[in-house]
Amino acid sequence: MREGTVTEAAAMLREWDDVLVLSHRSPDGDTLGSAAALVDALLSMGKRAMFRCADPIPEKFFYLFRELRLDAFTPAHIVTVDVADKALLGSLEPLGEQAELAIDHHFGSHRPFAACRWVEEAAACCMMVTRLIEAMGVEITPRIADALYTGVATDTGCFKYPSVTPETHRIAAMLLEHGAHASKINTALFDTKTRTQIRLESAIYRGMEFYFDGKCAVVSLPGSLIAETGATESDLDGVSALARQVEGVVCGVTLRERGAGEYKVSLRTAEPVDAVPIARTFGGGGHKFAAGCTLHGTLEEVKARLLAACGEALGAR
Amino acid sequence: MREGTVTEAAAMLREWDDVLVLSHRSPDGDTLGSAAALVDALLSMGKRAMFRCADPIPEKFFYLFRELRLDAFTPAHIVTVDVADKALLGSLEPLGEQAELAIDHHFGSHRPFAACRWVEEAAACCMMVTRLIEAMGVEITPRIADALYTGVATDTGCFKYPSVTPETHRIAAMLLEHGAHASKINTALFDTKTRTQIRLESAIYRGMEFYFDGKCAVVSLPGSLIAETGATESDLDGVSALARQVEGVVCGVTLRERGAGEYKVSLRTAEPVDAVPIARTFGGGGHKFAAGCTLHGTLEEVKARLLAACGEALGAR
Repeated sequence: MREGTVTEAAAMLREWDDVLVLSHRSPDGDTLGSAAALVDALLSMGKRAMFRCADPIPEKFFYLFRELRLDAFTPAHIVTVDVADKALLGSLEPLGEQAELAIDHHFGSHRPFAACRWVEEAAACCMMVTRLIEAMGVEITPRIADALYTGVATDTGCFKYPSVTPETHRIAAMLLEHGAHASKINTALFDTKTRTQIRLESAIYRGMEFYFDGKCAVVSLPGSLIAETGATESDLDGVSALARQVEGVVCGVTLRERGAGEYKVSLRTAEPVDAVPIARTFGGGGHKFAAGCTLHGTLEEVKARLLAACGEALGAR
Repeated sequence: MREGTVTEAAAMLREWDDVLVLSHRSPDGDTLGSAAALVDALLSMGKRAMFRCADPIPEKFFYLFRELRLDAFTPAHIVTVDVADKALLGSLEPLGEQAELAIDHHFGSHRPFAACRWVEEAAACCMMVTRLIEAMGVEITPRIADALYTGVATDTGCFKYPSVTPETHRIAAMLLEHGAHASKINTALFDTKTRTQIRLESAIYRGMEFYFDGKCAVVSLPGSLIAETGATESDLDGVSALARQVEGVVCGVTLRERGAGEYKVSLRTAEPVDAVPIARTFGGGGHKFAAGCTLHGTLEEVKARLLAACGEALGAR
C-alpha cells in the first residue's frame, strides 16, 4: 500500500478506462454523491464507468443516478469512495481487495486496503472529489455540482457540524456557481419528513424520559413501537439525535430493540460528557460525542444499567 | 431621501461619534447580529455607540451583547439595521424618523424613512454589515465574526434557503477564518429544542390533518393547547414550517388562535402552489411560498373556509 495525492489520483483516473466505483454499505449522501460525481466525470471523458454498492440506494438519493447512463462491462480498475475499511463494502468486500485506489476523508481511522490510498482530513469525501475532478480537468456541470453538493451538505448537517472549515464553504460557493440546485436538494434532504417519521417523532417526544436534573434524556424504541409506526431504516435516520437536542441535555440515550431482548444503544453527548467510556462499559465504542453499544435484557433492565453508567459520567452517583 | 453605497455608509460611520444603532421589533438573529457587530466595530474605533430595540432580546441571542460595554449618551447619529419600514421599529418609530442611515437587505420592499438608505439584495443584512465593517477598516475579531455569522446563518436557515448565493458561502468562509464559533452557534440555534417545544411538536404531529390526497396539511393551535403546553412566542418559532415539511405536502396551513375566535393563519407552500392568492382571499398577503392572513370564527369555520381556498389553489374543486 502506498499513499497518494490528489495529483496522482487524477493522473491514474485520466489514464484508466473501464472503471468501477464502489460506495460503502448503508450508503449515505457523501459516498453516493462522491460516486455519482466521479462516474459522471469519467463518462464525460468518454470512458466506460460503472457504480456498485452492497445495499440499495435510498429513494431520496435516486436523483443522483437518474440521468447517468451506466455501462455494463468487466472492470479493469476499481476505486472506492468514502470507504474507511474494506469491511464497510459489505458483500462487495472481495472487490475492495482488488481496489487500486481508495479516496477517503476518514483521516486517522482509515484502514488501508487498496494498492494506493489518498486519505485526507475533510468534512466530506465530496470535498476531495471536487478537487479531484478539477485536477482531472473535467468541467463541473450542474449535475456533477449537485452530486458534490449533496455529499458536502449531508456530511456536515448542512454546514452545521464542527468539521466545517472555510474550505467547506468555499467549495460550496464554487458548486453553487457551477449550477448546483442547493435549495432544492436541501429541502428534500433536510426539510422533508415522511408521515411515518412524524408518527415516530410524536411518539418519541411523548415518551421521552428525563433523569439527573434534565441532563440525561432517554428514548425507548421497543420493536412494537417501530412496527406500529411502520418505520423503515430510512425513517429511523436521525432519531438518535433527538434526545440530545433537548435544551439542557448533555447525555442523550436512544434504545432501539433489534431482536427480542437485544437493544442497540446510541449515545449522543455534549460537553462535558464523553460518550466513549459509557459505551465501553458495555463493550461498545465510538467518538467523544457519538458512541454506541449493544445490550441484552428487558427494556427496564437495559435502561437501568445504562442510567447507572450515565449517572457516573455525569458525576451524579 | 437618497440612495447610498457601502463606501458612503462606511465614510459616514467613520466620521460620526455617539451613534445609536436600532434593530427591528420582534428581533431575530440577523437584525441583532448586524447591530451587535456594528456597535462592536464602532466601539473598537474608540467611538461611543449604543443599541436599542423595542422588544426584549430573546435569551438565545444574549451572547451577542454579553461582552459589549454599551455606553449611555444622547445620540448624535442614528442608524437602522435590517429595518424594512419605520413601522417595524415598534415603539421606537419616532427615532427611526431621525435616522440618517438605513442599512437593509429587503431590496424591493424597503420603504424609505432615513435620510440615506443603503439597500441591496442579500440573503442577510449581516452580509452587508460584513462588507461595511471591512470598508470601515475595522478588524473582524472573533466576537464580531460570531455576530455576523449569527445573522447569516439564521436568515438562511443555516445555508438551506434559496436566497443563499456563492457570496453567502464566501462570507461564511471568511467569518470562520476570523474565528467565528460556527458549530457552537449552530448547535444552540438550530439543534436545541426546549422541553416546551417538544411537548408542542408532539401535540402538533399528533393532531396534524391531511386533505386533498395528502397535498394539504393543517395544524390547529387553539389557545387552550398553547396554554396547556406553556409555549412562549419563542417556543412557537418555526411551528409554521412543520406542516409543509411533510413529504408530499405542497400547501401547509397553520391556524393559531390569538384571541377568542381570532385565528392567525400561516401558509407555507411549495411548487406549484402560490400562497399569495390564498392569503389575499382573506385580506392577507406575503411571498409566493410564505404568506399569512387573519380569520375570525370558530376553528371549524375558519378551517372550512381555508380548505376551500386551498382546494381551489390545488385545482381540487
